Order: sequence, then C-alpha cells, then structure tokens
Amino acid sequence: MQLLKTLCQLPAPAGEEAKLTTFLLNYVQEHGPSWRQPPLLVHDENRFQDCLLLVFGQPRTAIFAHLDSIGFTVRYGHELIPIGGPEVKTGYRLVGKDSQGEITCTLVVEEETEALSYEFSRLIETGTSLTFACDFRETDTTVQSCYLDNRLGVWAALQVAETLEHGIIAFSCWEEHGGGSVPYLARFIYETYGVRQALIADITWVTQGVKAGNGCVISLRDSLIPRRRYVERIRAIARAAGLAHQLEVEETGGSDAKDLQRSDVPWDWCFVGAPEDEVHTPDEIVAKVDILSMVALYTELMREL
Amino acid sequence: MQLLKTLCQLPAPAGEEAKLTTFLLNYVQEHGPSWRQPPLLVHDENRFQDCLLLVFGQPRTAIFAHLDSIGFTVRYGHELIPIGGPEVKTGYRLVGKDSQGEITCTLVVEEETEALSYEFSRLIETGTSLTFACDFRETDTTVQSCYLDNRLGVWAALQVAETLEHGIIAFSCWEEHGGGSVPYLARFIYETYGVRQALIADITWVTQGVKAGNGCVISLRDSLIPRRRYVERIRAIARAAGLAHQLEVEETGGSDAKDLQRSDVPWDWCFVGAPEDEVHTPDEIVAKVDILSMVALYTELMREL
Amino acid sequence: MQLLKTLCQLPAPAGEEAKLTTFLLNYVQEHGPSWRQPPLLVHDENRFQDCLLLVFGQPRTAIFAHLDSIGFTVRYGHELIPIGGPEVKTGYRLVGKDSQGEITCTLVVEEETEALSYEFSRLIETGTSLTFACDFRETDTTVQSCYLDNRLGVWAALQVAETLEHGIIAFSCWEEHGGGSVPYLARFIYETYGVRQALIADITWVTQGVKAGNGCVISLRDSLIPRRRYVERIRAIARAAGLAHQLEVEETGGSDAKDLQRSDVPWDWCFVGAPEDEVHTPDEIVAKVDILSMVALYTELMREL
Repeated sequence: MQLLKTLCQLPAPAGEEAKLTTFLLNYVQEHGPSWRQPPLLVHDENRFQDCLLLVFGQPRTAIFAHLDSIGFTVRYGHELIPIGGPEVKTGYRLVGKDSQGEITCTLVVEEETEALSYEFSRLIETGTSLTFACDFRETDTTVQSCYLDNRLGVWAALQVAETLEHGIIAFSCWEEHGGGSVPYLARFIYETYGVRQALIADITWVTQGVKAGNGCVISLRDSLIPRRRYVERIRAIARAAGLAHQLEVEETGGSDAKDLQRSDVPWDWCFVGAPEDEVHTPDEIVAKVDILSMVALYTELMREL
Repeated sequence: MQLLKTLCQLPAPAGEEAKLTTFLLNYVQEHGPSWRQPPLLVHDENRFQDCLLLVFGQPRTAIFAHLDSIGFTVRYGHELIPIGGPEVKTGYRLVGKDSQGEITCTLVVEEETEALSYEFSRLIETGTSLTFACDFRETDTTVQSCYLDNRLGVWAALQVAETLEHGIIAFSCWEEHGGGSVPYLARFIYETYGVRQALIADITWVTQGVKAGNGCVISLRDSLIPRRRYVERIRAIARAAGLAHQLEVEETGGSDAKDLQRSDVPWDWCFVGAPEDEVHTPDEIVAKVDILSMVALYTELMREL
Repeated sequence: MQLLKTLCQLPAPAGEEAKLTTFLLNYVQEHGPSWRQPPLLVHDENRFQDCLLLVFGQPRTAIFAHLDSIGFTVRYGHELIPIGGPEVKTGYRLVGKDSQGEITCTLVVEEETEALSYEFSRLIETGTSLTFACDFRETDTTVQSCYLDNRLGVWAALQVAETLEHGIIAFSCWEEHGGGSVPYLARFIYETYGVRQALIADITWVTQGVKAGNGCVISLRDSLIPRRRYVERIRAIARAAGLAHQLEVEETGGSDAKDLQRSDVPWDWCFVGAPEDEVHTPDEIVAKVDILSMVALYTELMREL
C-alpha cells in the first residue's frame, strides 16, 4: 500500500493535476517494461493536457480513472470556495503553497452562513489551491485517507495494468469539477483504436444497499442511466467468474461517464468500483477486501469484454 | 390507431429501448418497400447503439423522434427512483419483469417525504425497470394512454415516412433522462449527408397559450432558444400552406434539441409537435385533430425546407 | 466611443444576432484592409450560422467575444420570460418590433410572484423579443449603457484587431442563454489552424475583490476551473509587461469557456476582461481606464502566447 499512500499524498486538485501526471509517467516508465504487456504511453500536453493514456495490445475496452481531487481555492482575504464538492467541518487541516512558501492551515466553517475560511499565521495569496492534509491510516482490514476517491481507482488500474494484455487505461482530469478531459480522450480512443466500451474505475458510496466488505460495486445507474444491455454483460461476466460483487442503484451522483454519455461517440459505459464511507472528507475509508475485489473484477472484465 | 396502441404498449424506458427498436426495424422492413420512396435503414449496434435511422432520397432535413419513455428503477427493498420525470400518484399500475417473472405492481407515494415505493406480492430484484401499465383509450376525438410522449411522435414520423421523398427520420434514445444518442446521430447525419436542419417530433404541453384541438404546435423556444431565422422559415411555410398550427413560448422544458444545440455541428432546429394534457402520467391525452395536423405539417415542412 | 455606442444600440438577443453580425461584417470589410494585417473573414451561414471569424496571419491563440445579449420574450398576453439572466425592475424601458410595428414599452415586475409583464398601448405578438432601450452615457472616466456585456468585449477585440499580426477573433452567439455556437467554432478553429489556446473577451463583475479602475481582470476561475498552467503563463506575461491587472476568483458564473471546457478539443482557456457594475441592467458601467487596460493586455497576450 506504499504506492497508494504516495498517490494520496500528492496534491492534484482539479485543474492542477500536472504533478500527479508526472509521477505516474515516471512510475509507468520504470515499471511498465516488466509488466506482462508493456504499454504504449500516450502523453502530449498539446493534445491531452495533463492526461495520460496507457495502451496495451489490441484494446477492446478502456478504463477511465480520474486523477484530480476535490479541494478549495483561496478567494479574497480569508475566504475559501470549494473545488468540486468537499465535505466541510471546522478543524480540517489543509495544505498548499504560494509564492511565500508552504502552507498548513485550518478550515473554518461559519455556522450560520456555512461560509468557508481559513485560519493561518498570514494571508494566503488569492487563487491558491488548498487540499486536505493527508493522514494515511492502514489496519488489517481497511485503508483510510483523504482522496481514496480516486487515488484508489488509479492504484487499482495500475494493479490491473501488471497483467493486462489488451486494453486502455485513461487517467483523466477535472472529474470532480465538471469534467472536460474525457471528451477528447474518448474521441481519440474511438478514432485511433475503435474502442467504445468503457469501465469507470472510481470510488462509490457505502449506502443502505451497498455495504463495506461485500465486494466491488457494479452500478446499474446513478444520475445517468447506462445502456442496460452492456451492464448486463458485465454482470454476467462477474457471475460466471464467481466474483463477489454488489449492485448499486442511485438517483444522484455522476462520474467521468457523464462526458462519455454526452459525447458524439456511441460509448457503452459502466461504473465499477469499491465503496467508501466518509465520502469527500479527510477520512475516506475502504475495506481491503473490496479493494482486492475491485482488482479481481477489473482483471476479469478486461479479459472477457 | 392500432400501430400507435402497439407502440404505447411496448416498454422502452431510457436505456432499454432495444425491443422497440427491433419492432420498428421489422415494421420498416415490412412496410418500407411499398412507401413512395423506400428508405435506407441505418442500424448498427456498434455505431448507433439502439437507435435507428431511415434515409430517404437526397435528404435536406432530419426528423428526430425519441423512442424512450419515463419510468422507474427498483432501488433497494421496496424503493423506487424515477427514470426521467414521471408524475407520481399512489395507485398507478406499473409493469416489468425480473428473473422471477412478470410483474404488475402498484406505485405508492409517501405523503410526507414523497418517497416512492411499490406494493407487490414479492420483492422485485434491485435494478429492475418498471413502466406505466398501458391502458389505451380512443374516442372519436381523442387518444389517451401512457407514453403518447413520444410514441405518438414516432407514429407521426412513420405516417410521414409513407410519402416522404427526401429526408431523414432518426429514432433516438435516452431523451427523457438527459440524452446521449443525438450527439452521435447528429454527427453522422451531418458528416454523411451534409444535413443540418432538424425538426424535433415530440409531444408538448397544453397550457394557457396552447389548447387541445387548435393544431400542431411550432415552439418558438423552451429552456433553449433556436435560431430565429430558421423558426421563421418554418412559420412561413405553415402559413403559406394554410395549415392550422399554434405557437408556443416557454421558459422551461427541453427535447432532443438540447443535444443538437450543444453539438459541434451548426444545427438549426425547431420543436414541432402535438400538445398533450396529463403530461407524464398514464393518462396522457391528445386530440386527434392535432395528430392529423402534426402529420400534415411535417409532410409540408419536409417538402419545403 | 461612437463605435461602442452603435454596438450597444443594435438589438441582438440570443438567437437573433444576425443584424449585429451583418454590421460587423460590413465594418471589417470597410476597415480591415487598412489594419496592420488584414484578416481573412470566415462567414458562411450554413457552416457558422450567425457567427463571424477573423483570421490574422498564422494564429496561435483565439479570442472569443460573444455577440448576443440578454433580453425578454413575449409569452402569451402580457407575459414576459427572460432571455439569459436579466436583472428586472419595474420601469425599465424595453424595445422591439413585431409585424404591427416598432415597440417601446415598460417592464413590470409583480412584487409577490416576481412574474414579468409589459405595459404597452397594444398587445405585442407572442414570441416577440424585447431588449433594454439603450441610453448610452459617457463621462471623462466611465461609459454606461445596457449591453456593455458584451459589446465592450466585441469593441475591445476590434481595437486589438487593428494591430494584430497573428491570431483569431471569433464572434460567437447564444452565450447568454446556454451557448451552442462555440462548440463548432472551436472544432473548426482547431481542425483548420491547430489553435487550442483561448482568451474569453467578456465583461465580468465588480466585487469585493475586483474594483472599478484597477485594471483588466484575469480570472483564475468561476464556476469552472481552467488549467492552472495556462493561467499562470497569462499572469506571467501581464507581469513581465508591467500591465495593470487584477485577479478574480469566483465560485459562480460562466462564459463561452464552458463550451470550450466541454468540447472534445483540448482547449486551454482563460477569461480576461474589464469589470462592470450594475451587471445585466440597462445601466452597466465600466471605467475607461479598465477598458484601455483590457485592450493593452489583449494586445500583449496575443503577441506573447
């Protein structure tokens, strides 16, 4: 879990994913050659901004895992505004950097107005991004940290990568704040490789119908509804392989799939990922058994789809 | 009206349009050869998912008619969540199917919370889709059923098809739940045929400004605003032909036109369709004279645009 | 400022930009040949609807300036519904035209319901568009009028055009009402010229962090977040040139950048524009020093980016 810890500690709020991208690029350049099928790295700032694509063999299916996280932007004075939809509580520790140096400050939520601000020894420069301070905790059965959503999805994709023969792994940007990179990734993938089957490797929620420890989630819908025929194929593969999994049916929430659904390419997509509790807080927690289940399910799906 | 009744009875909630698509494919294969201009059928699951295109002669204008309907998804236990925006009332009869067999159950709306659930002799499997039970009613002057929105639009397009010389009829998916098929249909149509004029064959609302029986509606705007110059051409054609019609001006509502407006193709579009009352209930009702008006207006518009 | 006054007086609510487009086309045809680098005019209703592109030399960056304005549509009887998001106050004077002739009427806002209507000597035809009556006011230090947003952005782009060597100026439609032209402009520009750097020439708000008279605004974010690396390049160019400017950080608001962010082209974008007070009223007011600052900053950015 050292890799996961490193990923969780790297700040990459939506719009500033570049450092995480560089880390992944180095990681894949170092480890990729020893994988079962060394991937082609597709990375070009002029064409893909801070995204990264790994292409294995003759791909039929693409995994989308978003790099970015939620966070906060310093507005004017002590004001903060959210990046994406973070949970907020007075006392959360935030980190960042401006031209005056490193920042470790504290989030303050005004009770009446829910206005956000920070407490710090000096003013932070307008426009500075802050992210949750990472406190990575591991037990025999769980991992807990900020940004398991979606560093765990990224981590799982890298595990799958080690034995993947045919497929694409797309590391995307801006998912937490409205999207914007999947449209061009999706077009490039479709036009270059003819691939139009997608799996969204992201982290979902523990709810009354989804329990921690019961296996990776196959989502039948969230705010959007995927084509049923594709989702049923995925369920059939999971059942045939005897892999533990649970079903999700939600009315709200979304993922990189939004950009696939809206694109002018006929993507079939399905959200497949481990569930977490304490969503969008510094204390996101996931059961290890669900993490293993996610890797196993992806390995099987990428083989069979 | 036997064909319309059949269309209304076929369940096709957003994301599960496949059976209706197959029905239409068979219908056009059977009847198309005897139409004035037998159309080219464009249907390929890998390129168009569950959509279907009919291409007549040298097309200049495309009709978009959505196949899908509103409905409900079974969440966990007895919970239901909506597909699209159905009106809800305790007692509405719902139908569906899961691995245990056919389902006919009853909708329950909790008064306080407006939470949706079903009453049935057994639990229904998570993820099962339910649609309104179809009670098709016809009088001398009206038709009434669930899903006239948009099976009546589909039906009207099929009537127009019988005498159409030049044009495209595009049967789309997901309209009731955020869209997602029109982007690739629109791109294919533009790139293959150079067509960028659209008519949205859908059903609108009876309001204080739109009366049942006063003719097909030409919508000047809803939540989106079409290019005025195109809408004025449509109005001029309707006036020149002496065809009864009424104008609609709304602040809310949308259609497949949303996906055209947002697309990277310079589509001109206009919503043209009969008005209904009891919108999104099992009792949608439309005046027959408005249905005839819709077919007549489309026939003229496809000739003149 | 005679040109700016003329631009403010020309009605062009979203969807009806054609007259303003024609004016600009004539203006550029008349004046363009004497500019430092006479631009190529790209205008074709079948490909670009009512948009207009000016292409200078070998472009690397595109300026997007929207032509359209907010306004009102006559619904049924005396009802009005908004085009975009106008501020409303009983007594605002509105102008328009229907088949019975010119209209000068008065806006009425019902206190309880906030319903909008008009007072006029006769009924206005359903679907008629109304815009604020233009009362253009100029002092030594300010200009004030309806529709400085975005006729001032258009005007500033035309000033920059006079000395521009390499770049594109794109005049877009529908920005105030959900967009819809930038997607195809963006695709055309990228595919034809390989340009993927954008500046949004639009007018923003005076707030507690942005003061009238302090220079043109570089926006670090609004409801969307641009890629930080690009925004930092813009800030560096402004600093290196010693040009007065101020930074904006907002949680809400949007611009033509929304359509760039969502497009399947990897656009980098940044909103750069003068701030105004009395936003979306007939009394929008901008400091002249900020207007000059905007022209100077754009001139420098188009040279250096």
